[in-house]
Amino acid sequence: MAIKRVGLQTVKLSNPPSIISGATIVGPKEGEGPLKEYFDLILEDDMWGQESFEKAEAKIQEEAIKLAISKANLSPNDIQYLFSGDLLNQIISSSYTARQLEIPYFGLYGACSTMTESLSLGAMIIDGGFADKVVCATSSHFSSAERQFRFPLEYGSQRPFTSQWTVTGAGATVLSATGNGPYITYITTGKIKDYGIKDANNMGGAMAPAAIDTISQHFKDTGYSPKDYDLIITGDLALVGKRILLDLMKREGYDLSEVYSDCGLKIFDGEKQDTHAGGSGCGCAAVVFNGYIYKEMLKRNLNRVLLVATGALHSPLSILQGESIPAIAHAVTIDNLVE
Amino acid sequence: MAIKRVGLQTVKLSNPPSIISGATIVGPKEGEGPLKEYFDLILEDDMWGQESFEKAEAKIQEEAIKLAISKANLSPNDIQYLFSGDLLNQIISSSYTARQLEIPYFGLYGACSTMTESLSLGAMIIDGGFADKVVCATSSHFSSAERQFRFPLEYGSQRPFTSQWTVTGAGATVLSATGNGPYITYITTGKIKDYGIKDANNMGGAMAPAAIDTISQHFKDTGYSPKDYDLIITGDLALVGKRILLDLMKREGYDLSEVYSDCGLKIFDGEKQDTHAGGSGCGCAAVVFNGYIYKEMLKRNLNRVLLVATGALHSPLSILQGESIPAIAHAVTIDNLVE
Repeated sequence: MAIKRVGLQTVKLSNPPSIISGATIVGPKEGEGPLKEYFDLILEDDMWGQESFEKAEAKIQEEAIKLAISKANLSPNDIQYLFSGDLLNQIISSSYTARQLEIPYFGLYGACSTMTESLSLGAMIIDGGFADKVVCATSSHFSSAERQFRFPLEYGSQRPFTSQWTVTGAGATVLSATGNGPYITYITTGKIKDYGIKDANNMGGAMAPAAIDTISQHFKDTGYSPKDYDLIITGDLALVGKRILLDLMKREGYDLSEVYSDCGLKIFDGEKQDTHAGGSGCGCAAVVFNGYIYKEMLKRNLNRVLLVATGALHSPLSILQGESIPAIAHAVTIDNLVE
Repeated sequence: MAIKRVGLQTVKLSNPPSIISGATIVGPKEGEGPLKEYFDLILEDDMWGQESFEKAEAKIQEEAIKLAISKANLSPNDIQYLFSGDLLNQIISSSYTARQLEIPYFGLYGACSTMTESLSLGAMIIDGGFADKVVCATSSHFSSAERQFRFPLEYGSQRPFTSQWTVTGAGATVLSATGNGPYITYITTGKIKDYGIKDANNMGGAMAPAAIDTISQHFKDTGYSPKDYDLIITGDLALVGKRILLDLMKREGYDLSEVYSDCGLKIFDGEKQDTHAGGSGCGCAAVVFNGYIYKEMLKRNLNRVLLVATGALHSPLSILQGESIPAIAHAVTIDNLVE
């Protein structure tokens, strides 16, 4: 049997699935940031007519998925599987969305790594011959995340400078067995790394080791080096995690300074928008990828990108019980050209 | 490109992955039930030396996975992917377990459908040529679930007769590209069904429509009928859901009465053990499958089984916000013989 494995943690797709559509919906704050021109819809009100933050998040995810499907000139009936997840307990944004769409559904939990977790599984399922079209999606909402993971907004808690701002937004990708690209060519699946950080206001520091491990392993497995990429972009390490990553990758022998960025730094203007270390949340990598990266790849301004969404897999309860933050990073290579 | 699809929601595996090992660890109450002889380890104390119910659940999952791997004469290094999930917020039992095992990890959330969600994805990833060995696992714990989803145990809340008893236990399966069976031959992936039930103490009623939909679709897609199976077993519909399922399946034209059972009814003696409608929780289908079903298949007492784990995908918050319970059911066919 043909094993498509390359090295220890990577697979090479034999018929690379094509990204035939991407859609993004973001909140007002994200719509004031540097990437505003790349988003399909910027909400004026992050409640979007719903009666709770959680219902608003589900509506944002649902509408982003519907938009991605319609941009591909398809209907939900044409999609064989939906791979999605989010930050909320029991991933309710994704499950209530999947109820509305009536697509066979695999619910995922990878925290802020969900965009590449869903792309990884979706791409393998297509390449394996099990589907022709799948949707990969995720969402987050500042106000639903803040009250679940930290404090009620009404409390007015002061945020330390290592803290990140959860993105309000959703991104959805339609993958297809056929298409004109960009293509998903390699998938490097992460192991959990946990260096003992217990501060839930320092996600960048907690997640950097996982990103370093996955990117290093990707280079070892594929033989690629930083210069083979136009862009290597992590999910949401933001300012703190970026410094750790660049420093430690250099010690591993890889200088990423020329090609590296982070979705959490791209989405906000930290100085002007008062977002401290930068953006975070499942929606962060989702809207930066389906907005900025996808559109720049279609314009051929970027031709090969390594997207490395990063997730912190703790819960408020596990932190209260004295546990540290386990983190994970999943990488996918997106290529305009296939061999 | 070869599409392995059969009908609308089913795939047929071209090189059916073999189940080469299954392991189960259960709590004391499960160890007093009718299936006690099938479990690998019955705990005397459901805390297992840990300082919280949540940490105990993670230990149970971790040890069940290690046991499954060692029973297959493998080590964690031989496993390319771990597919797992559980009921706890942010699936902490699974993520802390994945941290200890250092296997590339895809976190899932399917509530009590997780056992077949993980088997579905694991089997497709192997059949697609992306892995040689994967582990599929899940866990639940009565005490961690009860305080998260319902009331603190100390509150002494009275349980209605439709309520189910969350199983304390974990099950893990090792799937392999090669082996002597039993094999996973068909996978029918569920859509969410929600008939408007809002009572979180009536899971069986909420989940029955999803099971009915998936089983009916499985028959339509594959051409199989109830008589082709030695056993068709749902995850945890228990007493209430079983009655609804048998009744409504008959109206759909399928008489399941000769071959049907439910994991939630197998695991406890409802009369003697005071478990009301029956068992539930991710661990329920996991230990009934990896204990009873797997061992009976190896003994050739069962030769073709349809395992249909069912999940209720609400959260306590979504119910408080007036939402109903979205439910899903994923079916896998397990065969001693392949064509």
